[in-house]
Amino acid sequence: MSFEPICEVDVPQWSGTADVLVVGFGGAGACAAIEAADGGATVLMFEAASASGGSTALSSAEIYLGGGTRIQRAVGYDDSVDDVYGYLMASNGPQADAVKVRAYAEGGAEHLEWLISLGVPFKESELKERAMMALTDDCLLYTGSEKAWPYVDEFKPAPRGHNLEVEGDNGGPLLIKILTEQVAARGLEVHFESRALRLIVDRFGPGARVIGLVVREDMEERYYRATKGVVLCAGGFIMNEAMVAQYCPQFLSGKTFIGNPNDTGSGIQMAQCVGAKAINMHEGFLSVPYYPPASLTHGIFVNGQGQRFINEDAYHGRIGSYLAQQTYPVYLIVGVDDYGNYEQESWLQAPIAGTGESLEELVSELNVPGDQLLATVSRYNEDARRGDDTLFHKRAPWLKPLEGALVALDCTPGAGAFFPCFTLGGLDTTLDGQVLSCSDNVIPGLYAAGRTACGVPRRGDGYASGSSVGDATFSGRRAGRAAAGASI
Amino acid sequence: MSFEPICEVDVPQWSGTADVLVVGFGGAGACAAIEAADGGATVLMFEAASASGGSTALSSAEIYLGGGTRIQRAVGYDDSVDDVYGYLMASNGPQADAVKVRAYAEGGAEHLEWLISLGVPFKESELKERAMMALTDDCLLYTGSEKAWPYVDEFKPAPRGHNLEVEGDNGGPLLIKILTEQVAARGLEVHFESRALRLIVDRFGPGARVIGLVVREDMEERYYRATKGVVLCAGGFIMNEAMVAQYCPQFLSGKTFIGNPNDTGSGIQMAQCVGAKAINMHEGFLSVPYYPPASLTHGIFVNGQGQRFINEDAYHGRIGSYLAQQTYPVYLIVGVDDYGNYEQESWLQAPIAGTGESLEELVSELNVPGDQLLATVSRYNEDARRGDDTLFHKRAPWLKPLEGALVALDCTPGAGAFFPCFTLGGLDTTLDGQVLSCSDNVIPGLYAAGRTACGVPRRGDGYASGSSVGDATFSGRRAGRAAAGASI
Repeated sequence: MSFEPICEVDVPQWSGTADVLVVGFGGAGACAAIEAADGGATVLMFEAASASGGSTALSSAEIYLGGGTRIQRAVGYDDSVDDVYGYLMASNGPQADAVKVRAYAEGGAEHLEWLISLGVPFKESELKERAMMALTDDCLLYTGSEKAWPYVDEFKPAPRGHNLEVEGDNGGPLLIKILTEQVAARGLEVHFESRALRLIVDRFGPGARVIGLVVREDMEERYYRATKGVVLCAGGFIMNEAMVAQYCPQFLSGKTFIGNPNDTGSGIQMAQCVGAKAINMHEGFLSVPYYPPASLTHGIFVNGQGQRFINEDAYHGRIGSYLAQQTYPVYLIVGVDDYGNYEQESWLQAPIAGTGESLEELVSELNVPGDQLLATVSRYNEDARRGDDTLFHKRAPWLKPLEGALVALDCTPGAGAFFPCFTLGGLDTTLDGQVLSCSDNVIPGLYAAGRTACGVPRRGDGYASGSSVGDATFSGRRAGRAAAGASI
Repeated sequence: MSFEPICEVDVPQWSGTADVLVVGFGGAGACAAIEAADGGATVLMFEAASASGGSTALSSAEIYLGGGTRIQRAVGYDDSVDDVYGYLMASNGPQADAVKVRAYAEGGAEHLEWLISLGVPFKESELKERAMMALTDDCLLYTGSEKAWPYVDEFKPAPRGHNLEVEGDNGGPLLIKILTEQVAARGLEVHFESRALRLIVDRFGPGARVIGLVVREDMEERYYRATKGVVLCAGGFIMNEAMVAQYCPQFLSGKTFIGNPNDTGSGIQMAQCVGAKAINMHEGFLSVPYYPPASLTHGIFVNGQGQRFINEDAYHGRIGSYLAQQTYPVYLIVGVDDYGNYEQESWLQAPIAGTGESLEELVSELNVPGDQLLATVSRYNEDARRGDDTLFHKRAPWLKPLEGALVALDCTPGAGAFFPCFTLGGLDTTLDGQVLSCSDNVIPGLYAAGRTACGVPRRGDGYASGSSVGDATFSGRRAGRAAAGASI
């Protein structure tokens, strides 16, 4: 499939025109369309699927925002912009985009207000459990590693995952339902089952302006004109195996790609074919979703050397990224009491590698140097008794000696456990979503947001749940307003 | 600086024409030019510096080749193509290019013959020491991790670094001297102090053909036409801090960029501006050059948890890549006897972090959990006495208990030790050096080789010395012949 652009002179006829054309009706596209319309632009949306949703609808929509949102204040958290900024800069590593992170930290409270103004419901409450998502209608949840080493020593923690007020894991569907209603309320034209194929440029060569889209719908190719801009919100590329093999092949073995089927990188590729630069293409989220039950956090992960490698109270995506780099096998060892309702509650589905009435009995069933594992557990138990994890700094509430009957789960990628992953690379854009070329020039008329762009979340080992939906809705808004020519 | 192409219609006048234009006169460019000329093409070379050399001239030129080269056979190694292929595929990880690796493994013996036919001297001998490069005129040297775990268990090892027959670290200069003479012997026109600025295309848009180069020389911009092809051999991008910050920011702190000053990524960027795809841009070589003296291999590396993290008999680049991912500080602990002539012989320049007449005394001077470090050393010593490193599988000859007076070197990046690095990302090319677009189509008329392309070496943790010069000369030859329209 070729994503090469076509030139205006080769357009046989225009099937429609709007100020702003939006590709993709997920969280980013919806917010781009709403803001473009509110900025005074006429808007036309194209969505390859039969309905709105994208990957946002499949997510929990734990929107990661901080710096003193209405809910944070109501619940009693004094979160600061500087702590959000510092945490996100540190956790997104050397490739963090300081400009985008700063705007995101400063704009968090306002962004939540905007969502509330659209009718997105948030309860003034916190879910205090260690959980992957809220299954209650509570709002605030720690969804990153804010309370874990090394971040907790540097930045004051606060829960920043904002779950919608809805029971069950229904945040994504509810968010999309509301955003879809807002699009409808504005009377915006939406074409479903309509696949963007190529960009249209006013001419070929340096300085070319993107002026439209070739779209396949109703079994024909049609040409739509954008008088102000095209906004690509077409998702990431985790569903494109060739792109994954080329850019992030570490995800090919033993991992499960998550996202919607149209996360094929088409937005990235269309833009690349007009000279756009893609960055951070090797990075992605990789989770070992080992809680719930939260009690498993009392356990320890050990690698093929029988050594621990991380503080187990970190976010599941941080642990997953570290885990993938270890010598295999990797086991999670936990007491039978803490194993609890694992089989009912867990997403992990890791097979049992061994069990034992004692540590020695368990060790004999595992495929790691037994004496090292005994030493590792012995040391961990001493630290746990003292309440001080001197090696990895797991916090005291999660420290508990591994004694009595024990279970080891096989968390080796490929051994049966569930390792969901998705991509964190995309188009290089300005803060306002303008797509940058390989020469670092703005490509006139072209914008991108959500996972088609490379935004705030940039590292698997620093990821926080809600930073994709947060970034998608935030960046979608900015791109929509900029494309409409409205002030930001 | 913009690398956007210009169109044929905008060329005011042509200053020269050749079948093949070669950008860069390092190892790749020289071999491309020689093969293009031998394939019947007229050739014109452009080099930004005042003389030939590139990064090849700065290297040791330990050309990594195997599969039964003349020297391997003479010395008594029965190396097979399958072992070379298997080792390179495994060590270059999931992003290894099977087609390029297969051709490189199969073509190793012939490539050495070709170099010999040009007059490059190799002695039928082996340097048996563990060394970074041969300072004698001996040829064969183990320059990767072939004899180290995990590779040694899977692929029959053989030394594949082919050092030129020259005393001292003079392989690179001698190789370039000979290649330069070969270029001169063919009467090829070479423009020095001549910087390629942009590509010239026959038209803009999909399917455009590269037909020439804009070059700055003698203080003016000139236009050169290629009737068959342009070959970009302009090096990597380690000297371009903005590109490093964007693509491989892990190299920004505490590391030293190595290469020639023109490794600015200009070849990659010129090609990207005509639609080329760059891949593997996050990867690079990162060394902790901790031997010589080889005796330091008897020591152990420990991380901020006081744990070992690798078999210390692996290649220095493999250890460097692992080291950079650890919790800091990282120390190398070694006995005073093995410390030997470290201060005279070592490239590492790591400061001493502590010394002690006993392990306990040393530990008290270090900034890691002391009891864990004691346990780590105790266990290592037991393994060493038994001759079996049960955790990391360092081979028996390098196992020796750490007893008596000990030294710890501070190998934390940024603490003063020398961590040289360079990039391993570049243009996606076919086996014959044709540059691929973001749509995976060949860009007509455009070729790339050496570090401007993404070739055989793709991972820092699997790198072997000599694989850059080996790949540069090998890929340069193929690109040169293909550009000339000669059979491969």
